[in-house]
Amino acid sequence: MNRVRVGIAGFGTVGRATAAIISAHADLIAQRSGVRLVVTSVCRRSSVKTEDIPVGARAVSDWNELVSADDVDVVVETMGGTDEARQLMLASLNQGKPVVTANKNLVATHGDELFALAAARNLPIGFEASVAGGIPILRVIHESTAGDRLRAVHGILNGTSNYILTQMESRGIEFDVALHEAKQAGYAEADPSFDIDGLDARDKLCILARMAFGGRLDVSRIPTYGIRQVRAIDVHSGNRLDSTIRLVGSAESTQSGTEISVRPWMVNRHSMLAKVEGVNNAVFLVGDKIGTQMFYGRGAGGDATGAAVVSDLIEIARDLAAGQISAKKISGFLDSHELAISQTPRPVSWYLRLTVKDQRGIVARVAEVIAQHDINIDSLEQQPHLPKDRVSFVITIEPVSEPTVRHAVDAINAFEFMVEPVLLLRIE
Amino acid sequence: MNRVRVGIAGFGTVGRATAAIISAHADLIAQRSGVRLVVTSVCRRSSVKTEDIPVGARAVSDWNELVSADDVDVVVETMGGTDEARQLMLASLNQGKPVVTANKNLVATHGDELFALAAARNLPIGFEASVAGGIPILRVIHESTAGDRLRAVHGILNGTSNYILTQMESRGIEFDVALHEAKQAGYAEADPSFDIDGLDARDKLCILARMAFGGRLDVSRIPTYGIRQVRAIDVHSGNRLDSTIRLVGSAESTQSGTEISVRPWMVNRHSMLAKVEGVNNAVFLVGDKIGTQMFYGRGAGGDATGAAVVSDLIEIARDLAAGQISAKKISGFLDSHELAISQTPRPVSWYLRLTVKDQRGIVARVAEVIAQHDINIDSLEQQPHLPKDRVSFVITIEPVSEPTVRHAVDAINAFEFMVEPVLLLRIE
Repeated sequence: MNRVRVGIAGFGTVGRATAAIISAHADLIAQRSGVRLVVTSVCRRSSVKTEDIPVGARAVSDWNELVSADDVDVVVETMGGTDEARQLMLASLNQGKPVVTANKNLVATHGDELFALAAARNLPIGFEASVAGGIPILRVIHESTAGDRLRAVHGILNGTSNYILTQMESRGIEFDVALHEAKQAGYAEADPSFDIDGLDARDKLCILARMAFGGRLDVSRIPTYGIRQVRAIDVHSGNRLDSTIRLVGSAESTQSGTEISVRPWMVNRHSMLAKVEGVNNAVFLVGDKIGTQMFYGRGAGGDATGAAVVSDLIEIARDLAAGQISAKKISGFLDSHELAISQTPRPVSWYLRLTVKDQRGIVARVAEVIAQHDINIDSLEQQPHLPKDRVSFVITIEPVSEPTVRHAVDAINAFEFMVEPVLLLRIE
Repeated sequence: MNRVRVGIAGFGTVGRATAAIISAHADLIAQRSGVRLVVTSVCRRSSVKTEDIPVGARAVSDWNELVSADDVDVVVETMGGTDEARQLMLASLNQGKPVVTANKNLVATHGDELFALAAARNLPIGFEASVAGGIPILRVIHESTAGDRLRAVHGILNGTSNYILTQMESRGIEFDVALHEAKQAGYAEADPSFDIDGLDARDKLCILARMAFGGRLDVSRIPTYGIRQVRAIDVHSGNRLDSTIRLVGSAESTQSGTEISVRPWMVNRHSMLAKVEGVNNAVFLVGDKIGTQMFYGRGAGGDATGAAVVSDLIEIARDLAAGQISAKKISGFLDSHELAISQTPRPVSWYLRLTVKDQRGIVARVAEVIAQHDINIDSLEQQPHLPKDRVSFVITIEPVSEPTVRHAVDAINAFEFMVEPVLLLRIE
């Protein structure tokens, strides 16, 4: 039996779960794949509890030591962050060692550099765990749809935001309360910006879009809006529209280029997207031949993410054992051309919620601005029983392109009676 | 660029779709995978329309000729049936040529023989297309969950049955009408038994269970019930229970063995299973670490199935081009031990619909039989306004194991007032 020795750099939730899965399932893995995974080294700057260290492994505090150790064949990067994690991966590849990472931010921002080095060194990078936790969506795009032309990839890519939105809906609570509870339940970080402002979903969408459509794409070019502005009143309005709110990352290949964004959508309650609740993720692929496929499961958490890390480790270990290790040609990360972003996105319907200081003539002035932009109002409701200094209007409009609705929203935001900026949701 | 030459035996819907995808996407595939697929030969007993034959390929009527042709590197089996298809696959492997098949019946019934020969010859068999059309569920089980212990696999595996059930529900039509329409729409065969009696789902479930749990399993050991007995009245009763009917193949690994069956379930309208409509398929995996995952998409049709065939072809072609062709160790198909079927299945709730000639005392006699089997009735309804010679009772019962409910159903079926056997649905 071939032994493949693993070093785990970063021994937090995912790192520990990875070690625990390898330890618990070593026999099962050996029996199925013909290789035995052994963790020989773990690295964490802060001290590691003795009981967490895998039997036979040592704990080190300097990742350089782990990367260069003679008894480490494959390096797992679960440190997070981008500076040191990047250095670790470059060092590992330069020493001829394959790497597995769960770090979406790193892959999204430094993927070009990392995959170029991996190609030069003819080594694989495993990064299944970086998108949608345990859902094997990257492997599906890379392998299973290799013969198809993908037209769209979209989905619910951030479990924290989805947990907050579904809690707001099922219990009728306000955003602040749901966020506070999510923190207490361990589903949101102390600083939740990365999740609730859509940045985490943006990094994942960037990776998905590059692999699906092929081409370079700087994350900063993806228009990104989070859920920080969503209020109970919007969930309530959603009910009236037989809909619910989801934070959706969406990339679509059109004749005029790629339409891509992360933003909250108002989705029909009977849609598959609406069925995705709590911290779960779901990714939809649309291809010429496969039609629409959906992949659903736990999007985060040590166990699901660790399982994805281990699936990559097994694939690499099999190839190592067979003497067949080689770089994988990952579509989108070795291309020289940029993904062209569409400048003329197609019209969709929109939901606008205005919060205003009540005064005479507001509806007329808002309606006039909307008409000036050649937008047709589909429905308008002023919420009853609200304090005069915070009155909400909800307006739904017929399909227009995003630039058009943005111009109208900018004009509305300039009105002196606006208490906060318009909340804009795409209606699907 | 490496050319890999493909021979397609069986040039019906799937075979033609496979050829069309290869032809349409040859450049895309070459660009992504570094190999160029070329169809050099197609085989069909009946004559092939000239315009269907790929450019540069020849049509033959004897598959022996195709298998032994010098310009065929990989053989695609899309003939269907088991006799000749089996011979073709054996011949192909014996000539040192990898095979890709879309034939679930063949893999389910002759998998042991085929995979044993493939292992002896160190050649891969691609069979992704045999289960759930374009959904890459076999690759997911084989690769992505390799490090996890799977506890359950279940799903909607037959598009024809699902189409009929969802048509009955959405339009309130009877089974016969829905079946007739499905035939006209091309979603059901002239002889629909294989689909509506659950045999197609059974073959797919057999493959899934073997791969998920590891072990031999003769298809004939899977208790299989189809949807032939489901009537509009059951769909109507489902509405009352806020539920809908789905044909579900389910395999669960328990301490007392594997619980496995194909049967119609009454599922809650808000469940993910209920969301699967029309000819779509969905497969759920439950693992210790990954939790519950769902994979959804088109379960049949030339394009989706052809795309799965092509994904297998690309994988094999890459390995051929790299000189790394080898057998894959497919869990469950090279095992010597049998999957143990549980003899003590766990209790679940059940729905019973009785159709009787109305006479005095029926309810009392049925209730007595049920009580004698220590079964608690959860609800009972006699449908109003029905002809006296075909009165329907619907009974739901609290959780009991299948053997218990079967005994009670056998006793009820023996009553002289029964017009047809009890329809039994699992409630989930």
